[in-house]
Amino acid sequence: MISKKMESLVDNNSVIRQMFEEGKRMAEEFGADKVYDFSIGNPNVPAPEKVRDTIERLLREEDPVDLHGYMPNAGFLEVRARIADSLNKRFDTSFGAGNIMMTVGAAGGLNCALKALLNPGDEVLSFAPYFVEYKNYVANYDGVLKEIRPDTETFQPDLKAFEEAVTPKTRALIINNPNNPSGVIYPGSTIQAIADILERKQKEYGSEIFIISDEPYRELVYTDAKVPYITKYYANTIVGYSFSKTLSLPGERIGYLVIPSEAAEHERLFQAVTIANRVLGFVNAPSLMQKVVAECLDEKADIGFYARNRDVLYEALREYGYSCIKPEGAFYMFIKSPVPDEKEFVAEAKKEHILLVPGSSFACAGFVRLSYCVAYETCVNSLPGFKRLAGKYGL
Amino acid sequence: MISKKMESLVDNNSVIRQMFEEGKRMAEEFGADKVYDFSIGNPNVPAPEKVRDTIERLLREEDPVDLHGYMPNAGFLEVRARIADSLNKRFDTSFGAGNIMMTVGAAGGLNCALKALLNPGDEVLSFAPYFVEYKNYVANYDGVLKEIRPDTETFQPDLKAFEEAVTPKTRALIINNPNNPSGVIYPGSTIQAIADILERKQKEYGSEIFIISDEPYRELVYTDAKVPYITKYYANTIVGYSFSKTLSLPGERIGYLVIPSEAAEHERLFQAVTIANRVLGFVNAPSLMQKVVAECLDEKADIGFYARNRDVLYEALREYGYSCIKPEGAFYMFIKSPVPDEKEFVAEAKKEHILLVPGSSFACAGFVRLSYCVAYETCVNSLPGFKRLAGKYGL
Repeated sequence: MISKKMESLVDNNSVIRQMFEEGKRMAEEFGADKVYDFSIGNPNVPAPEKVRDTIERLLREEDPVDLHGYMPNAGFLEVRARIADSLNKRFDTSFGAGNIMMTVGAAGGLNCALKALLNPGDEVLSFAPYFVEYKNYVANYDGVLKEIRPDTETFQPDLKAFEEAVTPKTRALIINNPNNPSGVIYPGSTIQAIADILERKQKEYGSEIFIISDEPYRELVYTDAKVPYITKYYANTIVGYSFSKTLSLPGERIGYLVIPSEAAEHERLFQAVTIANRVLGFVNAPSLMQKVVAECLDEKADIGFYARNRDVLYEALREYGYSCIKPEGAFYMFIKSPVPDEKEFVAEAKKEHILLVPGSSFACAGFVRLSYCVAYETCVNSLPGFKRLAGKYGL
Repeated sequence: MISKKMESLVDNNSVIRQMFEEGKRMAEEFGADKVYDFSIGNPNVPAPEKVRDTIERLLREEDPVDLHGYMPNAGFLEVRARIADSLNKRFDTSFGAGNIMMTVGAAGGLNCALKALLNPGDEVLSFAPYFVEYKNYVANYDGVLKEIRPDTETFQPDLKAFEEAVTPKTRALIINNPNNPSGVIYPGSTIQAIADILERKQKEYGSEIFIISDEPYRELVYTDAKVPYITKYYANTIVGYSFSKTLSLPGERIGYLVIPSEAAEHERLFQAVTIANRVLGFVNAPSLMQKVVAECLDEKADIGFYARNRDVLYEALREYGYSCIKPEGAFYMFIKSPVPDEKEFVAEAKKEHILLVPGSSFACAGFVRLSYCVAYETCVNSLPGFKRLAGKYGL
């Protein structure tokens, strides 16, 4: 009865979202403190106080007709200008309001970018492991997501495999840096190498190939690693950002796209993403939150909160014999499953009330993802369960 | 360079939105009080005070992690339950939370519904004049919008033409009641006749044909006319609602879909729209605003404000010789152009700083739309311009 495209989506509903809803059910059955829900990237750190203060001030000072009203589909001009200024200060770029479109979260932004770029049959590349929704976003516009096999030692891009994967049909590469689910950061040298390959391929094929850089975790970095700003390496770039993680506002759906003036046919492309924002039904990013984030651009996530979780989990899991690359950014750990079929491990962990997501949801079977954006106590209290599991598997 | 689907959208960018942005530019050039911008449905009435009070209370009382966090893709369960209760009280229906999905405005909801229903080539009917974006929403999923010719005397549905237009490929009928742009209300008897036709056609073709009822103007009614609740007439109904107009929150993007339990394969359909909400990149309706509207379900738009605008414009325009059906609901007037090519009239009106939208944008050439959700002064001060135009055209 429902559409054919939705049939398979309903039959293979998101494992992450199912786990999230199962976690809520289990918390009711067993008590929230007895369930260790590492399934979803829902920050457990409250939004900075400045978010609340700003909302209160805007409600007092602004005309509600402006505050809650329509504005141009790309967003309030002054909000876009402030974001451009903030980026310029931090990354030595030279954006203006005309390079920024406010979006309904990063997910909304990525959909607008893909709608603007893809013709049916176009190929979009992504390095496994990658956020599973990319596949669905690309399929919305009848594109085909081609995954580049993971390097399960370093979780860094396999550049040789990448170069071989670029074809005349390649329209875009989606990267996610810092990476969900591995927590690694792709360094500037890797981005440069990717840019060089794409420049070569664009010339060879006479095509325009875009890097779509999904960067909700840009500010969540635990080491002194720098997250390169891709527009400085490559002209045909679209950056997608979300305030979900940095400001702990995932439910508010607020983010932006950056389209540099150097991108091919910049003005027409910008118009296209703006119109995509309208016709896909977003219309505009939520108005109050646009004005809130513009005032909170210098606010930072409480990185210490996540770092503490990362450390306690990483140290303990290593001690118990698990194998895992130490995350440099984001708030995920990608743990090697003790058995080849990681879904079996996920099921065993669930018996310990530990909720993890199978790596096959990220095109990387044999691993599991743990989201540590949870209370510190959840991390600590989950450890005996992890220890018992390690014992069971003889780690 | 951009995708083929977007090429034509960029080349034929929304006349309404262009006019809206032109209005902002003209207001800067000539002064806001010298421009009579009737182009867009952006309410000029402030949101009820309860909206502000509720936001302030939620900020004080709720845990920010819950208030701004992820929830199930369909929305907060308690918000959905309260909306169901409110509908049941007002329309004698029997919905539960399982019938309500929170959406990013009505536009987001309509897109989720169409994504859930349409296969490429499916036909969607709508009575002209209709909101031009329906065509784009349907095209997003490779459906084809077929318009049913307008009855320019009454602006009521032409039932004979409708019956002839239903084919085995018909998947849905989009109706908009009260209607944008005509302001008329389709009465219960008309809805019953439409339902009877669709029941017959479903049997004849062995198909499921949905009514998608777009109802952002449900509460904006100036007469004692009743706006029928379609689920009481027809099982295969999806109602789309938005708080944009009633609570003056168009920029906040908050609305909901209603899918009655009687609809074919209700549970699977509900799952499909929920997953569509996720994969299209909406993810969920903005979280704070979900909780706000749940507390404001009994708030009403200031109908007196719009009624006053309607009356002063309608009386004056009739006096000047314009021909126009008296609007019963919404905040639009659909005026017969004094010349066959209404774009010429729109251009002449613009010289008087009066911004109108050509009826061809609503599949109904020869008319113009006037949105009277503006300040009363704007209406009054526009009258000399309308009078001069009437003189120019010898009305």
